[in-house]
Amino acid sequence: MQHIYFFDEGNKDQKELLGGKGANLAEMTNLGLPVPQGFTITTEVCHYYLSQNHSYPQDFDGQLETNLLKLEQNAGKIFGDPENPLLVSVRSGAAASMPGMMDTILNLGINDQTIQGLINKTENERFAYDAYRRFVNMFGNVVLDINHEHFEEQMEAIKSARGVVLDTQLTVNDLKELVSLYKGVVQKETGKPFPDNPSDQLKLAIEAVFKSWNNDRANTYRKIHGIYGLKGTAVTVQSMVFGNMGETSGTGVLFTRNPSNGEKVLYGEFLINAQGEDVVAGIRTPETIDTLRQVMPEVYDQLIDIKDKLEKHYRDMQDIEFTIEESKLYFLQTRNGKRTAHAAVKIATDLVREGLLTKEEALLKIDANSLNQILHPHLDATAAKKVIATGLPASPGAAVGKVVFNADDAVALKEAGENVILVRKETSPEDIHGMHASNGILTSTGGMTSHAAVVARGMGKCCIAGCSEVVVDKKHRKFITKDGTEVKEGDIITLNGSTGEVILGLVRMVEPAVSGDFLEVLGWADEVRKLQVRANADTPEDAKRAREFGAEGIGLCRTEHMFFEDERIAVMREMILAQNLEGRARALAKLMPMQKQDFKRIFIEMDGLPVTIRLLDPPLHEFLPFYDKKIAELAESMGIEFEILKNTVDSLHEVNPMLGHRGCRLAITYPEIYQMQVQAIVEAAIEASAAGVKVKPEIEIPLIGNVKELEILRAEVQEVIDEFKNAINFDIRIGTMIEVPRACLTADEIAPLADFFSFGTNDLTQTTYGLSRDDSAKFIPQYLERAIMLVDPAESIDQAGVGALMKIAVEKGRSAVPNLEIGICGEHGGEPHSIEFCHNIGLNYVSCSPYRVPIARLAAAQASIKAARK
Amino acid sequence: MQHIYFFDEGNKDQKELLGGKGANLAEMTNLGLPVPQGFTITTEVCHYYLSQNHSYPQDFDGQLETNLLKLEQNAGKIFGDPENPLLVSVRSGAAASMPGMMDTILNLGINDQTIQGLINKTENERFAYDAYRRFVNMFGNVVLDINHEHFEEQMEAIKSARGVVLDTQLTVNDLKELVSLYKGVVQKETGKPFPDNPSDQLKLAIEAVFKSWNNDRANTYRKIHGIYGLKGTAVTVQSMVFGNMGETSGTGVLFTRNPSNGEKVLYGEFLINAQGEDVVAGIRTPETIDTLRQVMPEVYDQLIDIKDKLEKHYRDMQDIEFTIEESKLYFLQTRNGKRTAHAAVKIATDLVREGLLTKEEALLKIDANSLNQILHPHLDATAAKKVIATGLPASPGAAVGKVVFNADDAVALKEAGENVILVRKETSPEDIHGMHASNGILTSTGGMTSHAAVVARGMGKCCIAGCSEVVVDKKHRKFITKDGTEVKEGDIITLNGSTGEVILGLVRMVEPAVSGDFLEVLGWADEVRKLQVRANADTPEDAKRAREFGAEGIGLCRTEHMFFEDERIAVMREMILAQNLEGRARALAKLMPMQKQDFKRIFIEMDGLPVTIRLLDPPLHEFLPFYDKKIAELAESMGIEFEILKNTVDSLHEVNPMLGHRGCRLAITYPEIYQMQVQAIVEAAIEASAAGVKVKPEIEIPLIGNVKELEILRAEVQEVIDEFKNAINFDIRIGTMIEVPRACLTADEIAPLADFFSFGTNDLTQTTYGLSRDDSAKFIPQYLERAIMLVDPAESIDQAGVGALMKIAVEKGRSAVPNLEIGICGEHGGEPHSIEFCHNIGLNYVSCSPYRVPIARLAAAQASIKAARK
Repeated sequence: MQHIYFFDEGNKDQKELLGGKGANLAEMTNLGLPVPQGFTITTEVCHYYLSQNHSYPQDFDGQLETNLLKLEQNAGKIFGDPENPLLVSVRSGAAASMPGMMDTILNLGINDQTIQGLINKTENERFAYDAYRRFVNMFGNVVLDINHEHFEEQMEAIKSARGVVLDTQLTVNDLKELVSLYKGVVQKETGKPFPDNPSDQLKLAIEAVFKSWNNDRANTYRKIHGIYGLKGTAVTVQSMVFGNMGETSGTGVLFTRNPSNGEKVLYGEFLINAQGEDVVAGIRTPETIDTLRQVMPEVYDQLIDIKDKLEKHYRDMQDIEFTIEESKLYFLQTRNGKRTAHAAVKIATDLVREGLLTKEEALLKIDANSLNQILHPHLDATAAKKVIATGLPASPGAAVGKVVFNADDAVALKEAGENVILVRKETSPEDIHGMHASNGILTSTGGMTSHAAVVARGMGKCCIAGCSEVVVDKKHRKFITKDGTEVKEGDIITLNGSTGEVILGLVRMVEPAVSGDFLEVLGWADEVRKLQVRANADTPEDAKRAREFGAEGIGLCRTEHMFFEDERIAVMREMILAQNLEGRARALAKLMPMQKQDFKRIFIEMDGLPVTIRLLDPPLHEFLPFYDKKIAELAESMGIEFEILKNTVDSLHEVNPMLGHRGCRLAITYPEIYQMQVQAIVEAAIEASAAGVKVKPEIEIPLIGNVKELEILRAEVQEVIDEFKNAINFDIRIGTMIEVPRACLTADEIAPLADFFSFGTNDLTQTTYGLSRDDSAKFIPQYLERAIMLVDPAESIDQAGVGALMKIAVEKGRSAVPNLEIGICGEHGGEPHSIEFCHNIGLNYVSCSPYRVPIARLAAAQASIKAARK
Repeated sequence: MQHIYFFDEGNKDQKELLGGKGANLAEMTNLGLPVPQGFTITTEVCHYYLSQNHSYPQDFDGQLETNLLKLEQNAGKIFGDPENPLLVSVRSGAAASMPGMMDTILNLGINDQTIQGLINKTENERFAYDAYRRFVNMFGNVVLDINHEHFEEQMEAIKSARGVVLDTQLTVNDLKELVSLYKGVVQKETGKPFPDNPSDQLKLAIEAVFKSWNNDRANTYRKIHGIYGLKGTAVTVQSMVFGNMGETSGTGVLFTRNPSNGEKVLYGEFLINAQGEDVVAGIRTPETIDTLRQVMPEVYDQLIDIKDKLEKHYRDMQDIEFTIEESKLYFLQTRNGKRTAHAAVKIATDLVREGLLTKEEALLKIDANSLNQILHPHLDATAAKKVIATGLPASPGAAVGKVVFNADDAVALKEAGENVILVRKETSPEDIHGMHASNGILTSTGGMTSHAAVVARGMGKCCIAGCSEVVVDKKHRKFITKDGTEVKEGDIITLNGSTGEVILGLVRMVEPAVSGDFLEVLGWADEVRKLQVRANADTPEDAKRAREFGAEGIGLCRTEHMFFEDERIAVMREMILAQNLEGRARALAKLMPMQKQDFKRIFIEMDGLPVTIRLLDPPLHEFLPFYDKKIAELAESMGIEFEILKNTVDSLHEVNPMLGHRGCRLAITYPEIYQMQVQAIVEAAIEASAAGVKVKPEIEIPLIGNVKELEILRAEVQEVIDEFKNAINFDIRIGTMIEVPRACLTADEIAPLADFFSFGTNDLTQTTYGLSRDDSAKFIPQYLERAIMLVDPAESIDQAGVGALMKIAVEKGRSAVPNLEIGICGEHGGEPHSIEFCHNIGLNYVSCSPYRVPIARLAAAQASIKAARK
């Protein structure tokens, strides 16, 4: 087994084995670039070390010796040699980037003997002792686990004794003394002298890096970023080069293109006479790369030349670290640079124009989910901000406004011309007008599919839900955060719906811009994707926006949201409170023309495209007030007794409303509701059609769990349609949601009665897991932290569970009806991993919020490309 | 195709084709018994007629003619002949018994001509005209759909004109006039004369019987009794014989054994000079069969001889109809007689002793579910009763007592020595003491698995739940039923938990008796069954009872019920309200010894048998009060502020508690709870074992949906066990509930970490269907009525949905661990159809309420026998 790879033995495809850093250093070496030489110990050795009781594979020591010898020969220096000492850095580097999470040791190999060689070679005693004291400090801290403060105390003491402020004001003798004092710290804290033998130093440093794989910081980072299944970190041992050897030395970082906007300009920073850590520490202000052209034109030219070479080689924008040692340029790292969504789009299209990438390759370079940044107004990333709490990023975008604590106040403040943030423990249908009036919504309870979250996403409004760090004190019109910040009514806060951050005060906003490049990329995506992309849109306005974003139809139009508006909810309540069929019919007759008008406008907006309209789904109590005060108000306005209304509300109360009397179950007991809705759909379609619009209505029945439900309801829907038989010159399709496990398991029975299936993965996830999204905020965070779940199943389809049921449904459904059209309209329809899964199991379309349509188009294309490559 | 079978062409196994009646008449004919001859039109003709627009198969008419001819030859009479007329009955008869639901026409073939022949042959003019007027009335009503009242009016008019009271007081001339008046009714109501042609009469009668298959009555009956998949009714056309031809004629019914208690004695009724309908009508009081011995000893001997023959032939107790026409005995029907559970057991064991049945055959003769009648105190079936409302039969048995409306009153009344019925809208954990004190529980809401239902079943107490016909007016301490009956506090009512009937006043009770025969039958069952039968038992008392009923272990011991008792719930609340781990640990330390004592006593009761203990399952808010008043009381008693307690209660509130923070999810966030419980189990087992008891503890973790939950919790459980390693000299197994779809779908991942699976089909049904049992009472009745569901999935496993997931779980689980032990502990574990399903998919055991253990033992045996026969 090869445990160690000298740089000339590896390549860029060995990230799993050599880590990103090791693989890219090997690749640059192979390209003939100036790289300080070295070798990389594999991630497998790390895994062995950590799992086998901190021991090494048998032949490891021999390979280490061999590679060290090769490095000495290559560098023309000898490790631990007092005349011509080799110094090395020891760095971590896993397959996935985990910046700053693991340990690094620089200047390793210095002791009281080798420093003489260093002084002789560099003719720079101050530099040598500065390196020495830095090394003892770093090694003591990182390898020997001594608190940094102990070293800092000595430094402060000596500075104070000498009456100086900056490190750089210390003399060579001061530094010498500091080395000795630092070693005293080590002796005192560990009970042992500082290890002077460079070989011991190296072994201890390697072990420290291995152990740092499992430190708390690294574990947390991997969990947060969903990094799983890696073996460990590789360790790269590399000759030191020094950017701090005077005015012809320096160090810098360089992006080959602008990572903010993607423009093809050099973007980087550079410090003369400095080491890498000085750039990071931020003590001195770095220069732009242009400065380098002036002070070291040849080095600059070489840098430009090589960065072009690297970009062509990697066929992507590079993030490069370099050091100049006495006018000689060295490359210490290159990797594909992180970038904003905006930049990703620009760079991908530019690289295609430059002939470096095919369109398909370019599509794969863009993180579909990151497009969210472009598609909503977003906060200026450069602005300072004070985050006072963090909740669930329930609806993306950002909002700034004055805090209010109830819906009526929101409306009033909005009418006064102010921007408004509505803060509630949770929202209910009674808050709809207030949500409309608000720029953003913050709730202290509820999950990603809570009322607030769903409605806000539907409205395209920013929302942070389940922010348990906030305690809402409605009575005193204020909220208090975990850190004790008190925010009163009228105070200004900013919400970042994409990160869940609640920020005190105003943060500047950047408007979304869909540039020409973005449109071009989406065009390429449309050429290769197999999945159709539709939108979930409940209003003509949503439909219009969806179409602008490229939706090929409406996959889910939720009719109930139409009932929440002021005038309508009154009629809806009249219907619910009716004592008999006659009373219900009377109220429904009032609702019919309202629904019809909505449907007609939607059909007009979606001229030529299918519109899937879901019949009433939520339980009736959602349309009634919950609190006694509101019940009293409603009773008053309807002219009925409080007790009677209260009793009705109580009798409609459900223990588990999610599993209650809703969806098609309502239609079985109250057939007149769906009859009214179907009539409204048909009449709207007839009128729109008569006006020259090409209508494609699709009627969708929710919550089917049993084929007989569909049999009965389909017949009832068809009966209404047949009443208009002579006036209909278009197709009307009748299909069903698939959103409870039983529907999946009996899909072969259901399919012959359904013109289409549409997966409602929100409810399917809740039932499959037995997990209410409104209640799971209490334990989901811990589940994610402990990696019980790798991702919240409300965000990305749980493929092992929910996905297994979806596969069963697709197989059973198509076993009965081979060409059955199947889509998805749950929240997952706009999430890239879920979209890939939908592609792979053969769905026909995904449907998502209008704002996610472009994301879905790109993700569908990526899924298609990836599947074809397999 | 043969559409019609003459009696000598069929046999008893052709019930599907000839109906029960037709098949048995054929069988009796083949046995050479005196049966008035005839023929049977098949159920397939009925199906054809009803589905093909009321038309007949092509060759039907010819076959009808041929069979009629054969019947004439056989009877020596001619249909429609004025000299020697053949009269026939036309009767319905489906494969399943549907007594009184479909139509029958007697005396068919009379008209003004044939009656002369009838008079001549019988020399009884009065009899002949009485038959004629009965025929016109019956035909007019049944075939021509004329309201019976129109005929009754004529009868009343003539009786009043003649000044008589009884029909029998009318003269021959009166009857003649009545025939004419009845025909006038037919002319008036149908606009056509009465059909005089016997062939027309026959065709019309056959069609009427066919149509009666789909009348409302019959449809409802089939739905209620779960009769599905039949083609239709057969029609039997049979020579009339007359029991009303004088003192040497008569008619009767005979059970070959007593259907109430199963004793081998004749049991029947008999009327001299009467037709069958007179017995049914109840105008005259029938004689016992003994009377027949006195008046017609030869006929009696023949009857005894033939009934023995029939019982031997059918190898079961028979329900026989016979008619004596002028001293000649005829058999009109025989069938296996309906019987009580008690009689079923007695008859089955007697038939085995008599050598008529094998033990296996005897086992199949007993309806396992009916044993419920024996296993709970039950109401005297012969007592009069006034049913004022009907709800869900949530927990079987019966109870009589005074009505109270809250738990405290129940306790007080019980202490005063009274029997108590607790009436609530719904019950909650706060009512436990009141439920304990009550003899029966009645709730107006909630389903078969509501709190009231589950707790009552656990306590073995009678409960009627979801009785929506009752409106509880807690404030005025009364309830009002749908029919307006008002029941006040202190009034006596009787509950029948097996039927759901609420009865006003006291009904006499019969104590359960498990007779020697019953024990013998269960012994046979134990010999053949493959499924082990365990019990769900939460207390030592339950465990004792379960063992008496033959349970082979405890399959589910719900630890939470132990927490609801007075002293304990206070400590439980202290634990829940603790602000930190320390406070929780302090409260848990108090609970530990209590749980330990319970477990120890259960281990002692179940010496040598496995005890599966489920760790805490319900959400924490179930242990806190819900109403402000109760919260205030608790706050006072705990010495904390109302607002603080109220906030805690609010913060624990869940939108869908069934899908919330419960089961293993609680243990992930509060590991100390399970740690305490495991410690209690282990210490209890160690102490019991030290006392010489053979303990077999099994620890069960609820609500696993994800293998990582089990991985973490199993390790934590094991850690506690390992602390006692040296003191443990028995096995402790650790398994999991399978109760959400995701657990089924990932059973192959879960199995390697589970020593056993136990299906929690209550929750699995709710999640698979997306159906909360607490809320479904609003629509399930309609679902059953409209045959959307054939049975409430809470009662019998939904095999197409829930069953499909169970199969997946068994297959996947055993694919990973071939010998995995799998059981079921949901409510379905005691339901015979579900038990058969469990046997067929290869489960190892079922676990059910102690009272259902004998039922499960028998059902398991039946499943085993049936499967072996296939």
